[in-house]
Amino acid sequence: MTQRTAAVEIGGTKLQAAIGTSGGEILEQARAPAPAESGAEAVLDTAAGLLDDLLASQTGKPLSIGVGFGGPIDSATGEVITSHQVAGWSGFPLRVWFQERFNVPVTVVNDANAAGWAEFKIGAGRGTKIFVYMNIGSGIGGALVVDGRLHDGQGFGAFEIGHTRVAGPDGTLSTLEDLASGWSIAREARAHTITPGTPLFDLCGGDAERIDTAMLGEAACSGDAFAIQSIDRAARTMGLAVANAITLIHPEVVAVGGGVGLLGDLLLTPFREEVERLVFGPYRGKYAIVPAALGEDVVLAGALLLAPHPA
Amino acid sequence: MTQRTAAVEIGGTKLQAAIGTSGGEILEQARAPAPAESGAEAVLDTAAGLLDDLLASQTGKPLSIGVGFGGPIDSATGEVITSHQVAGWSGFPLRVWFQERFNVPVTVVNDANAAGWAEFKIGAGRGTKIFVYMNIGSGIGGALVVDGRLHDGQGFGAFEIGHTRVAGPDGTLSTLEDLASGWSIAREARAHTITPGTPLFDLCGGDAERIDTAMLGEAACSGDAFAIQSIDRAARTMGLAVANAITLIHPEVVAVGGGVGLLGDLLLTPFREEVERLVFGPYRGKYAIVPAALGEDVVLAGALLLAPHPA
Repeated sequence: MTQRTAAVEIGGTKLQAAIGTSGGEILEQARAPAPAESGAEAVLDTAAGLLDDLLASQTGKPLSIGVGFGGPIDSATGEVITSHQVAGWSGFPLRVWFQERFNVPVTVVNDANAAGWAEFKIGAGRGTKIFVYMNIGSGIGGALVVDGRLHDGQGFGAFEIGHTRVAGPDGTLSTLEDLASGWSIAREARAHTITPGTPLFDLCGGDAERIDTAMLGEAACSGDAFAIQSIDRAARTMGLAVANAITLIHPEVVAVGGGVGLLGDLLLTPFREEVERLVFGPYRGKYAIVPAALGEDVVLAGALLLAPHPA
Repeated sequence: MTQRTAAVEIGGTKLQAAIGTSGGEILEQARAPAPAESGAEAVLDTAAGLLDDLLASQTGKPLSIGVGFGGPIDSATGEVITSHQVAGWSGFPLRVWFQERFNVPVTVVNDANAAGWAEFKIGAGRGTKIFVYMNIGSGIGGALVVDGRLHDGQGFGAFEIGHTRVAGPDGTLSTLEDLASGWSIAREARAHTITPGTPLFDLCGGDAERIDTAMLGEAACSGDAFAIQSIDRAARTMGLAVANAITLIHPEVVAVGGGVGLLGDLLLTPFREEVERLVFGPYRGKYAIVPAALGEDVVLAGALLLAPHPA
């Protein structure tokens, strides 16, 4: 039987809250930009306020809350280990804060782990035994499920594939996130001199500073050579990192979500080619790389599923 | 209660057989060089003959046999998937062959998996929840244990870290095995012009063709600059591959065995430094890289532990 549950997503730029079920179904939701420059407490007040507003229209409170946070979490304490995006988070007792604010049991998890768990339970990873989820957005996060359990390493997350290192075009080691995240793809395009008359030039009105990943995708669809090359290079860098991960773990399915994941076959085709070329020979053809199934509410769905659910 | 069990190890150059217990204790053992150039059947006849000889001095036969094989195994069928080292193995029904030859239940596993399981149960990984084993010898193999279970991917092994790819000195991608195995370290040294008067020159008598990993280790201990640099470069390449594996899986312990592992601190010191430099920040200091505990009988011990043991 499903139970009434609440979820909160705390990202670097976006906050969301939802009322839903312990089965991951979202019934009502709200979102707001994260006032990141105002620090951790301001972000939390805004996030909790979103949930207050949703609860105001309800009778009774939820049985529990799941929180998906955009940074590594100590699962034993529910504290933030560090945040790359917002100052003031290191060591913050996020679980205790929500428990005291709403007086219900709370689980706090890394947002990529929440998303990966949702894809495993009700999305692209259903029915698998070993499953990998990757979120390729402004950063690159991931999650690993082994034998039906979210793999949590030593208790503060694992499968940090965005932080694995590969050699860049100049041979120096960088993290995958530095080379292939949406932020890095767009940064590289912005630093480039865009040729007048090309689809990308028309889309950005000649102002390279306006380029983002979605615009690169649109330009690539119109045959823009620079945009195609730019996405292709990022896809092949991802291919190396993911081929190595498959050679180590051999999941049945790798599901790709996040904003860059929305580029679809523009990204997936060269990405799949490169994984197949580089993966351990006997594993070739014996895994699948698929788009994630759950869209942008995937962290909320995972937070609902992972919230404490007393039997 | 432990049960009487037999084990066979089939490597590229070495065959071993043992009588022991289901607890991994070896009571009697024998070894022979593998007649690899004579093909799979000749290798099997020699290996089975070793076991015949051990059994001839025993009363009663063992309850089961565990076989550790130097290549990927399909765990559902007990067939060899492929062998890099000996012709004639691809698709060979190894489990059925031993079952028919000895008329007892047989388990066949990859040798690195057998070794990793032994280190987890009775060696350097005892008491851990997430454990990684690496064998650095003529090749580089590995095994992963998660929550007390040998991680077997899609049923034909996993943690093939020797087959993950990293950029070499010239920027092209190679497998870790091609860049940092004992075979590759020695190959590179042999291709080098050894300077007269150096410790390595004295050890090899001026004949670079005689250099092997043990000789490089001895030369490095005597302060040979080329040998030190050669081991250091291999250790740092391993460091990159292992840092990435830790960033993905976050084991408590990584145990290093095999011939190159015997180089000890010559290898482990630069290896550990590089892992710590490159691993995901929040995991720094929160794992251990240790020498394997069980020595060169580790595959036999794992095969004894993994042999079928009816309750």
